[in-house]
Amino acid sequence: MPTGATAADGTPIGRLAWVGTRSNPNREPRFSEAERLGPSTSSMSEGDGWDWWEAEVEVENPVHGYRWLLAGVDGRQHWVNQRGLSLVETRDDDDFRLVAHAPAPDWAAASVLYQVFPDRFAKSEGAPFDVLRERGELPDWAIPADWDDAVDPEMPGRSQQIFGGDLDGVRERLDHLVELGVNLLYLTPVFPARSNHRYDASTFDRVDDLLGGDDALVRLVEAAHARGIRVIGDLTSNHSGDAHEWFRTAQADPESIERGFYYFGPDGAYESWLGVPSLPKFDWSSQELRRRFIEGTDSVVARYLNEPFGLDGWRIDVANMTGRLGGTDLNAEVRQTIRRTMLGVKPDTILLGESTNDAASDFQGDAWHGAMTYTAFTRPLWSWLQTPGSPAGGGLGFARAQVPTLTAPQMLDAQTAFAAGFPWRTRLATMNALDTHDTPRFFTHARPGTVPVALGLSVTLPGIPVVWAGDEFALTGVDGEASRTPIPWSRVAEPEVAETLDVYRTLLGLRRAQPALQTGGLRWVGATDDAVAFVREAADASVLVFAARSASAVELATGALPQLVGDPELLAAFGDVRLETSGTCAISSGGPAFAAWRLPGVAVPTTGSEHGR
Amino acid sequence: MPTGATAADGTPIGRLAWVGTRSNPNREPRFSEAERLGPSTSSMSEGDGWDWWEAEVEVENPVHGYRWLLAGVDGRQHWVNQRGLSLVETRDDDDFRLVAHAPAPDWAAASVLYQVFPDRFAKSEGAPFDVLRERGELPDWAIPADWDDAVDPEMPGRSQQIFGGDLDGVRERLDHLVELGVNLLYLTPVFPARSNHRYDASTFDRVDDLLGGDDALVRLVEAAHARGIRVIGDLTSNHSGDAHEWFRTAQADPESIERGFYYFGPDGAYESWLGVPSLPKFDWSSQELRRRFIEGTDSVVARYLNEPFGLDGWRIDVANMTGRLGGTDLNAEVRQTIRRTMLGVKPDTILLGESTNDAASDFQGDAWHGAMTYTAFTRPLWSWLQTPGSPAGGGLGFARAQVPTLTAPQMLDAQTAFAAGFPWRTRLATMNALDTHDTPRFFTHARPGTVPVALGLSVTLPGIPVVWAGDEFALTGVDGEASRTPIPWSRVAEPEVAETLDVYRTLLGLRRAQPALQTGGLRWVGATDDAVAFVREAADASVLVFAARSASAVELATGALPQLVGDPELLAAFGDVRLETSGTCAISSGGPAFAAWRLPGVAVPTTGSEHGR
Repeated sequence: MPTGATAADGTPIGRLAWVGTRSNPNREPRFSEAERLGPSTSSMSEGDGWDWWEAEVEVENPVHGYRWLLAGVDGRQHWVNQRGLSLVETRDDDDFRLVAHAPAPDWAAASVLYQVFPDRFAKSEGAPFDVLRERGELPDWAIPADWDDAVDPEMPGRSQQIFGGDLDGVRERLDHLVELGVNLLYLTPVFPARSNHRYDASTFDRVDDLLGGDDALVRLVEAAHARGIRVIGDLTSNHSGDAHEWFRTAQADPESIERGFYYFGPDGAYESWLGVPSLPKFDWSSQELRRRFIEGTDSVVARYLNEPFGLDGWRIDVANMTGRLGGTDLNAEVRQTIRRTMLGVKPDTILLGESTNDAASDFQGDAWHGAMTYTAFTRPLWSWLQTPGSPAGGGLGFARAQVPTLTAPQMLDAQTAFAAGFPWRTRLATMNALDTHDTPRFFTHARPGTVPVALGLSVTLPGIPVVWAGDEFALTGVDGEASRTPIPWSRVAEPEVAETLDVYRTLLGLRRAQPALQTGGLRWVGATDDAVAFVREAADASVLVFAARSASAVELATGALPQLVGDPELLAAFGDVRLETSGTCAISSGGPAFAAWRLPGVAVPTTGSEHGR
Repeated sequence: MPTGATAADGTPIGRLAWVGTRSNPNREPRFSEAERLGPSTSSMSEGDGWDWWEAEVEVENPVHGYRWLLAGVDGRQHWVNQRGLSLVETRDDDDFRLVAHAPAPDWAAASVLYQVFPDRFAKSEGAPFDVLRERGELPDWAIPADWDDAVDPEMPGRSQQIFGGDLDGVRERLDHLVELGVNLLYLTPVFPARSNHRYDASTFDRVDDLLGGDDALVRLVEAAHARGIRVIGDLTSNHSGDAHEWFRTAQADPESIERGFYYFGPDGAYESWLGVPSLPKFDWSSQELRRRFIEGTDSVVARYLNEPFGLDGWRIDVANMTGRLGGTDLNAEVRQTIRRTMLGVKPDTILLGESTNDAASDFQGDAWHGAMTYTAFTRPLWSWLQTPGSPAGGGLGFARAQVPTLTAPQMLDAQTAFAAGFPWRTRLATMNALDTHDTPRFFTHARPGTVPVALGLSVTLPGIPVVWAGDEFALTGVDGEASRTPIPWSRVAEPEVAETLDVYRTLLGLRRAQPALQTGGLRWVGATDDAVAFVREAADASVLVFAARSASAVELATGALPQLVGDPELLAAFGDVRLETSGTCAISSGGPAFAAWRLPGVAVPTTGSEHGR
């Protein structure tokens, strides 16, 4: 780790007597003294004024927590953990973690994810929906809609209104994803169901004919792969639909093996997701359910990763509730089994879990690579950038569907608190979404001019940037239903749309081009109520980031950025931004703004000792 | 919950639009609106200016987390959890918890615990040690010492020096415990071993003859019970001694069932506690080990709770490491099995686990009732009250064995951070120790005059007050070895000793006499760097507490204590303390001080609604 200024002369926290780590193997603390490697060097100056220390840490458990201790000659002890610096002793759950479980694929943190809700994205020429509609052969539950119709927010239209998007429609628009800079496509469920969202699967054995069936998925994945885009699917491990073949057998025959897949009471009543009867909850104590669904090469989990489908991973729905009911908690077994199956058939795959609130306890690296959560990025961001007093609608998980307004330091507190619960590798694969198919769209009530600020933070903070299809076209939606707008492909040339598209192309491109934004370390260097500045640091190049919601000036902490000299390369800028590097280092803006500059990489001195790497 | 001032007119956090709870059943948030019950009433005034709210919370999991949300009309949202009030969203692990597991016995939180290290407490007339020593029949490893000899801090004396205290010696001194106000006696191990501390048991089948054997334990427990004192023992679930009959069989016969009780490598090497060969680590995957040691009515755990012994519970040594090694973690199974066995044979027993650092993850109520930990009380207290720059010696777990100095708000931060990890019921049964047999004695380097301050906090903060035998006689000891001083019964009439004894009798008596100090709620009402004030609140009577390490004045938050009028009854005072109740409420001291006053109880208004209790 680096410490500020020169340790021999004192640091921002005083002159140091001892630097080292405190590990916690088998929950019993162990200390390890660090060796001072000396000042770091950079390509721009002989020394950047920072000192580097190295300590050996023996990883004894699959998840190994540790923190740094900086002991001063004045008797003060500063702890450094994932939450920052603390004069008082810190809790284990804020420790840094070294994880010995199989990691996410290398490409995970380099991903730019694009989320598609198949019924609403694009309809191919001769789409099955049109054919079946014309023949009068649509499913009995379907309420057909034309592409330009309004989304019906009320039941039954809310779940049964069908616009007829299909997988060939997605395939035909892949070049749009390429132009945006997307390299990972996430499809919400594609299995037959009795709703437009398909989270109520009636089988996992085939792709819905309304979407083009198995062959259309195969064609889509092949075409995506040909463009360097990976594709992941969406599985419901918490429940199936009540029309699922397993559930129908279970209901019809109390003696069936499928009866044990669900929680039936003696009267035939059954447990379901939040009490919604169409979504009966799985009972994961059934070994046969595991075998069919998640365990081994014949399971559903394996089937769609294998040829001919070739998916690159899964996003798992309602991962947080999966396997949990009353005194039962089989969550760890289920998630670990899913990942074990994936490692068995296709190791180079990603596993994301939906856990929209505090996800830390389940996301320590034993299965989920990253979280679809709104606590660590999305809600703090909205609280900073939404127009004060604006409603959030449902879906984002704001209490009472209202967005409280926070200052930038408060936003950072919230982000840091929740992100500190994850191992770093988990954070790098966690979804930085402005919004999703379950939420209102960010743009709807955003402070004017802040879309580049929000997306800028999504692509520069640790985590996978997420584009919910349509955001790049400046679509709005007041809640999770209204945001499932059919993409208005005919209107995408309108000026506001073109401007937003430019923001997306620029910022997603920035993310793709700068490895430091994918895996680099994170260091906050300044904040006001209305602006923040931070650096993502890597060996080859670092990136300085500034984001403001209104006119503001951030003075960078003295000595925080000794490598910031001269006139660094501006990588991207939106709004009126000015970087001052002579004398006092400061970044100022005349209004909402986002900017990023390239800085020299962090050159860690090599050690001459036998303890070196 | 109560909110300050009158909600209708605004609270310290502004006028409220909505009050309710956020629960997290099966990890999916659920909100419940609270009903305003109205202002509370007290015996001293018509209304004390506080409002009470009540919300229904359905407990769906064995450990049910919840927090309060106070939504203001200004759009701000304040969360209230075990860490206090927060404007930004809070993590699940700081939630309040409702726990459906079997609770600790009612008497747990009403206990005053006295810790005895049998070899060093008292020697009876005709003690086995003296008889065997005279006959030349002491164990081969024993290095005999006379009662007035110095404790030898170096190996081998460190573990083999024997002073010869015995259980009849303890029994003969029980009236001392009664006079002090003790009602729970904790004996460190009493099984045969090859050390003075006996944490290296050679069998669990009988009490060491050097201590008087089984009969002496039976006599001691009977005599203690006759005086209203309960007795708990000490078991090592992490390891046995290498002279243990199980380990000897395991080592001699690789085919034996006992071989599976330990972790042997192919070369005969074995895992042990922190690499100490005399303490081989148990492998809890062995079902036979479970059956003999912890599971069922014939197990060691059950045997000493049953007649004729009749112990009232166990303290478990190294609970934190138990069952943990590499990728294996059987800790939950072991602790839950121990408690299940105890519930089977004697439900009215207590189970305490040693976990000297952050204990939260294992102490959620599924087994351990309370923790022997130093994070939530002991280390923060030392950092506030030890002479700056004093060494801690080993044992307390301070990094580098040095005591960093903290202010009172920093002490509170640390205490709150660690205590917030526990369910409230766990906190009430967690040990508030100034020191133990493993640590230096508090008195050794304490700031002058602060022993009453430290013990005062031990008896007034939530948790079980602990007296490590000898502290009441003002003994010192620079580390965990030196503090195992034979009690100098011949010198206990010396003036300094008498003064300290008076502090102990007064403060332990205060704790016993005031139910609010045992189970009452905790509310901080003021702090300076050098002093703190808080209230323990209960329905019948509350207690206001003040503690200062030096001259200081704490002004009580306006409206914090509307029931503080007139001239409240002083329950105990050490040092120069003054309570001002007219005009500004303040407590001041001219030096180190501790004081407690009786306040009216908290009268919660009853609800008229059908949702009422």
